[in-house]
Amino acid sequence: MLAGIAMMPHGNDVLAPKDDETRYLAEVLRSIGEVFRTFDAYVLATPHNVRMSDHLGVIFAKHLVSWLGFAGVELPGEYETDRELARLIYEEARKAGLPVVDINFASLSGEYSRFPLSWGELIPLHFLEKRPLVVVTPARKVSRDTLVRFGEVIAEVVESYPKKVGLIISADHGHAHDPNGPYGYAPESKEYDALIMQLIRENRLGELLNLDEGFIERAKPDSYWQLLIMLGALRNVPMTLRATAYACPTYFGMGAALYLRE
Amino acid sequence: MLAGIAMMPHGNDVLAPKDDETRYLAEVLRSIGEVFRTFDAYVLATPHNVRMSDHLGVIFAKHLVSWLGFAGVELPGEYETDRELARLIYEEARKAGLPVVDINFASLSGEYSRFPLSWGELIPLHFLEKRPLVVVTPARKVSRDTLVRFGEVIAEVVESYPKKVGLIISADHGHAHDPNGPYGYAPESKEYDALIMQLIRENRLGELLNLDEGFIERAKPDSYWQLLIMLGALRNVPMTLRATAYACPTYFGMGAALYLRE
Repeated sequence: MLAGIAMMPHGNDVLAPKDDETRYLAEVLRSIGEVFRTFDAYVLATPHNVRMSDHLGVIFAKHLVSWLGFAGVELPGEYETDRELARLIYEEARKAGLPVVDINFASLSGEYSRFPLSWGELIPLHFLEKRPLVVVTPARKVSRDTLVRFGEVIAEVVESYPKKVGLIISADHGHAHDPNGPYGYAPESKEYDALIMQLIRENRLGELLNLDEGFIERAKPDSYWQLLIMLGALRNVPMTLRATAYACPTYFGMGAALYLRE
Repeated sequence: MLAGIAMMPHGNDVLAPKDDETRYLAEVLRSIGEVFRTFDAYVLATPHNVRMSDHLGVIFAKHLVSWLGFAGVELPGEYETDRELARLIYEEARKAGLPVVDINFASLSGEYSRFPLSWGELIPLHFLEKRPLVVVTPARKVSRDTLVRFGEVIAEVVESYPKKVGLIISADHGHAHDPNGPYGYAPESKEYDALIMQLIRENRLGELLNLDEGFIERAKPDSYWQLLIMLGALRNVPMTLRATAYACPTYFGMGAALYLRE
């Protein structure tokens, strides 16, 4: 059963908030962790694990091992893949005609079947109790419909899965908020972030599909593609929004959203 | 220019040989390293990096970082991807209609664009001078022709590339030589290994395409799919066999072959 969906950021600042907005954001992330404590497994969509241009990925490796922090912030840890759920998602996505690949590493099973985790997974996971999970990856050069359909497939599969599962959408938003940041300044970052939080709060996520490609490019998010997966999942299993938060303590925007079943 | 091709094993025993055959095998591996010293880059086909059922992979991540040794034998090291060559191989493989994906991790470029290496790459690389490289991965559930064609594409691309490039085929052979080994005993392992070395020595690699699927399964190699890539490359750029070696110090067979331009 798909028991809840959470959009969670992966910026280091939520680990050590320095302002009130970020402190509140971290508080909402902790509350997501509290609510998800009764869940048995997670599906985690991340933009900072394996990256392929035009294929979606489902990580099959048995052991998921902390490997890469951002700016020296390391969160050690090892997680296990729910391989049965990974297999079901992969197989259903293939049946749906989606361009998806199964990703393993070194060995097909056993102790050497391992895959690295980056800050994109480790920071959301830091706020959650450890559970078996399935890491899935979006792609930027597939159609918007493909990403929405992938979300629908994930929700379909999870709904008929005997465990209580949470879908985690790891996402940060516009990266061009600060003229001195690594991506410089673009007004579209602020505009994009405000729009995303508005669409979430007003239950209008479907309007994501209308966003102009150039606008997204200028806003420099790493959220848009995962949000389309979230949209697909919510289309299949309608939920109620229970909490949101947003903060932009450095050059990029971070938001949280918690959806639970009605 | 494709300057040479080497089939190299990735078993720990070649790092510390305990018998004469394995010592000779290690000697041949060192001689491959000597010959390849004048090369500018490598393409390395490996069965122990990213593994996908039915898609070939080309690793685009900038930094390739030692991550996973076998049985505790670690070979530290960091290598760089030749991204221009990776791009050319990927694009030509796509144009040829092959099921291939570009693999990156965390970030598309810069310091966070990293990918892990396992013993499957690190052991062959241990015998070679450090050069930029392109890691490519076979798949077991694609057609034999697809793998041969991938080898042809690699050879075509490399031939018109301005650098002197060596193709490394990381491969171990039958894994069921020892009744007390992890894969038990199957007479097909010995038979497969003898046949592979014979086909190499007698310049009859094309006969790989006639091998029975059940025979391969029972022999339990992790060489067959990479050897088809080697066959494709040799079809495109005929070379002369300069050295071979074979040893089976534990439960699996290891072989070396060095091909250079005529």
